[in-house]
Amino acid sequence: MRLYRVLTTLSTLTHSYLVDDNYTSRAEKILRRIEALAAISEDPQGVTRTFGTPAFLQGSALVKSWMDAAGLATRVDSIGNVRGRLVSRAAGAKTFVLASHIDTVVNAGKYDGPLGVLMGLDLLEQFIHNAVELPFHVELIAFSDEEGVRYHTTYLGSKVVTGSFDPGLLARTDAHGITLTQAIDTMGGNTQLLSADAIPSDQWLGYFETHIEQGPVLWENRVPVALVTAIAGQQRVELTWRGMAGHAGTVPMHMRQDALAGAAEFVLAAEQFGVAHKHELVATVGKLEVRHAASNVIPGEVVCSLDLRSADAARLATAYEELQQKAQAIAQKRHLTLHWDLIQYTAPVTCAPEMNTLLAQAIQESGHEVVRLVSGAGHDAVPVSAVSPATMLFIRCFKGISHNPLENVELADVAAAVQVSERFLQLLFSHYSSSPSH
Amino acid sequence: MRLYRVLTTLSTLTHSYLVDDNYTSRAEKILRRIEALAAISEDPQGVTRTFGTPAFLQGSALVKSWMDAAGLATRVDSIGNVRGRLVSRAAGAKTFVLASHIDTVVNAGKYDGPLGVLMGLDLLEQFIHNAVELPFHVELIAFSDEEGVRYHTTYLGSKVVTGSFDPGLLARTDAHGITLTQAIDTMGGNTQLLSADAIPSDQWLGYFETHIEQGPVLWENRVPVALVTAIAGQQRVELTWRGMAGHAGTVPMHMRQDALAGAAEFVLAAEQFGVAHKHELVATVGKLEVRHAASNVIPGEVVCSLDLRSADAARLATAYEELQQKAQAIAQKRHLTLHWDLIQYTAPVTCAPEMNTLLAQAIQESGHEVVRLVSGAGHDAVPVSAVSPATMLFIRCFKGISHNPLENVELADVAAAVQVSERFLQLLFSHYSSSPSH
Repeated sequence: MRLYRVLTTLSTLTHSYLVDDNYTSRAEKILRRIEALAAISEDPQGVTRTFGTPAFLQGSALVKSWMDAAGLATRVDSIGNVRGRLVSRAAGAKTFVLASHIDTVVNAGKYDGPLGVLMGLDLLEQFIHNAVELPFHVELIAFSDEEGVRYHTTYLGSKVVTGSFDPGLLARTDAHGITLTQAIDTMGGNTQLLSADAIPSDQWLGYFETHIEQGPVLWENRVPVALVTAIAGQQRVELTWRGMAGHAGTVPMHMRQDALAGAAEFVLAAEQFGVAHKHELVATVGKLEVRHAASNVIPGEVVCSLDLRSADAARLATAYEELQQKAQAIAQKRHLTLHWDLIQYTAPVTCAPEMNTLLAQAIQESGHEVVRLVSGAGHDAVPVSAVSPATMLFIRCFKGISHNPLENVELADVAAAVQVSERFLQLLFSHYSSSPSH
Repeated sequence: MRLYRVLTTLSTLTHSYLVDDNYTSRAEKILRRIEALAAISEDPQGVTRTFGTPAFLQGSALVKSWMDAAGLATRVDSIGNVRGRLVSRAAGAKTFVLASHIDTVVNAGKYDGPLGVLMGLDLLEQFIHNAVELPFHVELIAFSDEEGVRYHTTYLGSKVVTGSFDPGLLARTDAHGITLTQAIDTMGGNTQLLSADAIPSDQWLGYFETHIEQGPVLWENRVPVALVTAIAGQQRVELTWRGMAGHAGTVPMHMRQDALAGAAEFVLAAEQFGVAHKHELVATVGKLEVRHAASNVIPGEVVCSLDLRSADAARLATAYEELQQKAQAIAQKRHLTLHWDLIQYTAPVTCAPEMNTLLAQAIQESGHEVVRLVSGAGHDAVPVSAVSPATMLFIRCFKGISHNPLENVELADVAAAVQVSERFLQLLFSHYSSSPSH
């Protein structure tokens, strides 16, 4: 086995690690496929393939052609997921799913989603090439809608596969008035068959997804991969602060009821709360709007958001209460009225500890520091975790930038992730070959 | 002289003062005229009479008809000011101006401007009725444009009268592409005669304007009138804060460069600075906009305003510097970039101390507490002060509300102001009759 030193082109060149050239050439192939898929877009300048559009269908046909060529039993299901199956001959074998998504946000990067699908394809190609005896079925799935851009609801693809799809969503319309039912018809799907496309819950063995981190932790710490311990739960709140609008020149400072000053105090309180609990949660005010704003008018009404995320459901709940009390105290002190409206709640998801033990071992055996991260962004592993043990491997991305044409990954990091993933599956094979209970 | 007790209908009824019924009936007449003028509007629901519109011209014709009926030598000048003159027979008499404006903002109140014009008219009617021997000429002027709504430049009327009108403004266009020259033509004015409409600077004796306070100080302190010691200077700044946009779930708290958190810190710093120097200045952030805002995105760019006002030019200058340093320190600490752009500077104006001595005497002799206020809002006294001693009398308005259909004044307060103004002019007459130098 010839080893060579990979010098990364990261911000400093002091970091390097050893990768087998086999993994590097497989990573090159993965990145070539990503380029080919990224060339298919609704808009000629960037990368946009939202659920069910002609560009999306062209992209999914390309992914299916690769799965076919690999020798998988391939099909497109009723919600447009591209699914390729490699069947085990073991008695009573269950199904292990490798997956990510092939839809994108508008003006997206190339890697968010496709990287996980094409890394899964590479693994299956290797199993076929090496005639590996599988102790369980492996199904590769390219989910058709994870981002939720077109119908403003995420995880359409994985909800169908996990049997949690809500048929009430079929009547939803996109920006052009096209219902989800019509979109499925246009794609060649059949809404009557959606429930039949679920993998029965007793047939799930596990779920593994590789994905770019979409955050800066690996970049800042110069580590290529991380295992994901949990996907954060989220509370989204809308706060409306009302005081008294007034003339900026004529109302003395001590007679003001400035709604913006109240909101500003809350922005800082939320930030300080996040910093004080930085190992447990993140808190963000992303939107803030001054109603009827003018430079010479004391703000009378301000609406702002609060986005609160934590992997710990109890911590999330107490943080929510503590920040609500803080906001109310600010409003009371400043003689403002405050409306606090919970807009969204998503429960945290814990990644499967048993799989993570093996994933940590795979990372270590591949020569990398074991970094454990909580995913602050949502992933298909969220609906999957309701029916199956699930975990994820994060890959470092350029400066943590995502949902942006600047999204980028290093060849060396993809090679490292290929090695880790392959080792992880080998460990899973051993685990399940020696275990009679699957 | 029959005195009766006026119970005000203010927030509490504990405050009352004595007013001669003569002043009350004059105040009633003033308010009836204000109602008649307010009935003339561009929009049928509210009160809107912006410079040069048909409603404006109809309103100015009504005011002119009242001046004519009073027996003044009346004319409309080239910029649309309605001017009524009462001539003194004293040798070498100069001109004392009583004035306010008759244009309004969009969806205005009834009192901002017209109250001062119609109180001036009432005084001149009294002088004529009582055949007062004037020691100086008195000119009543209803300025045609103080608010600056149509051409986004204030004081068009008083700039012409004070000889400071900039002919470069004639090429400005309104929202419909009509130049100021065309607007003046339509009103029957002649742009060639604008400079001839100025009162020569050596002919100015003084300027007095009554106006609603447009702030809550008199309302909160339950006092009907105040004398104005100065009109605040103003600095208007636009601040642009740039950090790094990022995913609200994936960027840890300590890796953020949150532009909104920086701006929020500045909002509070400006407020605290204003409170700490509350007898010297006011500081307001009225506008704040998060660029590309989303509840799940850490703000990367925020633009906000700063409005800083003080009657003291030196204090205004040092406050400006101190807040700029504060903003830069916040930006530096948070690794943000800051652009600080001065948008507007207006120098403070000091009201004439000699006239204010007489005005204070008039307030006191009328039985009221002498309250001295700095005007945070601009007035025609600003351009006038370049050529003449000028001062103002403020009248309490309902809760300090202005530029709003809720703008209101009490009959008793108008009566009090009539009494104070009349006494003030009597004191001026004595002063100038005994002084050979005017």
